[in-house]
Amino acid sequence: MKLATKKNGNRDGQLIVVSRDLTRYQTCDQVPTLQRALDSWQQSSQVLSAVYQKMESESSGDKLDHAELMAPLPRAYEWIDGSAFINHIVLVRKARNAEPPETLRTEPLVYQGGSGVLLGPNDDIKLADESWGCDFESEVCVIMDDTPQGTKASQAQDYIRLVMIANDVSLRNLIPAELKKGFGFFNSKPATAFSPVCVSLDELGDSWKDNRLHLPLVTKLNNEKFGNPDAGSEMHFSFADLIEHICKTRSLTAGTIIGSGTISNEDRSRGSSCLMEKRMIEKIDTGEMKTPFLHHGDSVEIEMFDNAGKSIFGAIKQQVTPMNADRV
Amino acid sequence: MKLATKKNGNRDGQLIVVSRDLTRYQTCDQVPTLQRALDSWQQSSQVLSAVYQKMESESSGDKLDHAELMAPLPRAYEWIDGSAFINHIVLVRKARNAEPPETLRTEPLVYQGGSGVLLGPNDDIKLADESWGCDFESEVCVIMDDTPQGTKASQAQDYIRLVMIANDVSLRNLIPAELKKGFGFFNSKPATAFSPVCVSLDELGDSWKDNRLHLPLVTKLNNEKFGNPDAGSEMHFSFADLIEHICKTRSLTAGTIIGSGTISNEDRSRGSSCLMEKRMIEKIDTGEMKTPFLHHGDSVEIEMFDNAGKSIFGAIKQQVTPMNADRV
Repeated sequence: MKLATKKNGNRDGQLIVVSRDLTRYQTCDQVPTLQRALDSWQQSSQVLSAVYQKMESESSGDKLDHAELMAPLPRAYEWIDGSAFINHIVLVRKARNAEPPETLRTEPLVYQGGSGVLLGPNDDIKLADESWGCDFESEVCVIMDDTPQGTKASQAQDYIRLVMIANDVSLRNLIPAELKKGFGFFNSKPATAFSPVCVSLDELGDSWKDNRLHLPLVTKLNNEKFGNPDAGSEMHFSFADLIEHICKTRSLTAGTIIGSGTISNEDRSRGSSCLMEKRMIEKIDTGEMKTPFLHHGDSVEIEMFDNAGKSIFGAIKQQVTPMNADRV
Repeated sequence: MKLATKKNGNRDGQLIVVSRDLTRYQTCDQVPTLQRALDSWQQSSQVLSAVYQKMESESSGDKLDHAELMAPLPRAYEWIDGSAFINHIVLVRKARNAEPPETLRTEPLVYQGGSGVLLGPNDDIKLADESWGCDFESEVCVIMDDTPQGTKASQAQDYIRLVMIANDVSLRNLIPAELKKGFGFFNSKPATAFSPVCVSLDELGDSWKDNRLHLPLVTKLNNEKFGNPDAGSEMHFSFADLIEHICKTRSLTAGTIIGSGTISNEDRSRGSSCLMEKRMIEKIDTGEMKTPFLHHGDSVEIEMFDNAGKSIFGAIKQQVTPMNADRV
């Protein structure tokens, strides 16, 4: 099934069940918000699935306007982002003259992101200072059920409930000084944006395999193709590996979101999922980084299509704006 | 007023108003949980305050059993922990042969902690592996209202709603390898525990000054005094400074918890608020770290008393246990 959250003036919005083709929706009185659904997934998923099946078979439901959608979880209890693509780590560290960690291929990199304010698919990226070096990062992520401390990779898929895509906005020029302090990212990771819709694993068919999503993730910058790397093949640590690592010393509560990190392929013809990689490749090739970071007025679009060319999650489409402007 | 959360079988528990002397409580039908109170603080704080005033003046309410309390926020949207005590930073970095950051006195250190699973004041610290080097960290923290990006220190107190104390459990032996990876703490910071009660600023009287809480924080290890450093005087960055830093690139949602970092004084007669500092002082004095990290069966108690000797927040009292044991 496909689920989303519609603006209704409340902090958590209104949970809606969305048709497979993303054009129609229906509410479900018994389950008002996605967090409530996740809080008792065994029961609520059956109710929601029945609504979805009926809507699909009858082609029923109201017309869906994606502009009315918030992030599926407008605020979440945790947002933990991995960095599971080796090609991305190597390129981005090279760009800031840092070495990849010694444990590059043996232990996942993850960081704890802010989760109290999560952006909807069309929310502006409010950038106070263009010199901060604003970048997008196109990612796949999963929403977890309660997951006990000590969960192993072999059991991890049992706790994955939903999948979506994200734009993990980064402020590149704040990163070196911040990491030098030794406590990891903070100011350099402002609010993350999520796709209109999240989907259950069965919606992904054979594309979900080995706890990876084997489809290209398409990123456009100012309406032009920027990259479409495959999100599965080069994901060195699967979502199951990330979960085992994350749960080594702690339990997760239902509604925790875990990200893949920036999708990246070694094949350069696939392009990139962030500006930093492209800048680094330019530097390697020509000695100079040419592509600028995001400016006010720039737009970023991130979307994933199934093998039949249909959009799975709908499009993240954001514009970069000054702090106090509605639109540039 | 004083607020707490009573176990009722639900994830967020039942919000209760607690008497100043921490012995009685009353529920408030209009405001079922602390998060709901924070979601509309302007309205709910008036309702809750009226209940508190009436309970205080009438000495009414039911008898409170602290063993039935969860963390005031059993799950929170964000837990952001600072490290605002210079003496702590210097000692702990020395202990792991790391340099203090160049910006030690000019820019706060903060890290994003896990907030989906927060421990109640009497919950066990479930330690899977004693070799991880389990330590306590006694801290003061504040609970925020919605706080806009760009908030300055001069305005920050307007957004602080409640104050409580915390045990930010740390796994010291996991920290060096984790920080070496460059992404900050993750596995090394398991679930944090909070005091029975959180209180509004007016409960603190003159002890709350310059956005610091000027009272000693008492820590006991296995029922013996371990330290009572003052939580105000040497807090180099105030809560207002921490908030300005945190909000530089993001907004906070209501219910975000911000911690002071381990309370620490230069005066050694005050003792410490974590084992690591004591170990480092031993090394400086004798060449050898003698005090071990926590073992299964150890207990930690953290409490703060007002100038009349009355407990303000109640006591955090936790025991360290193996993963799958109820009690040692």
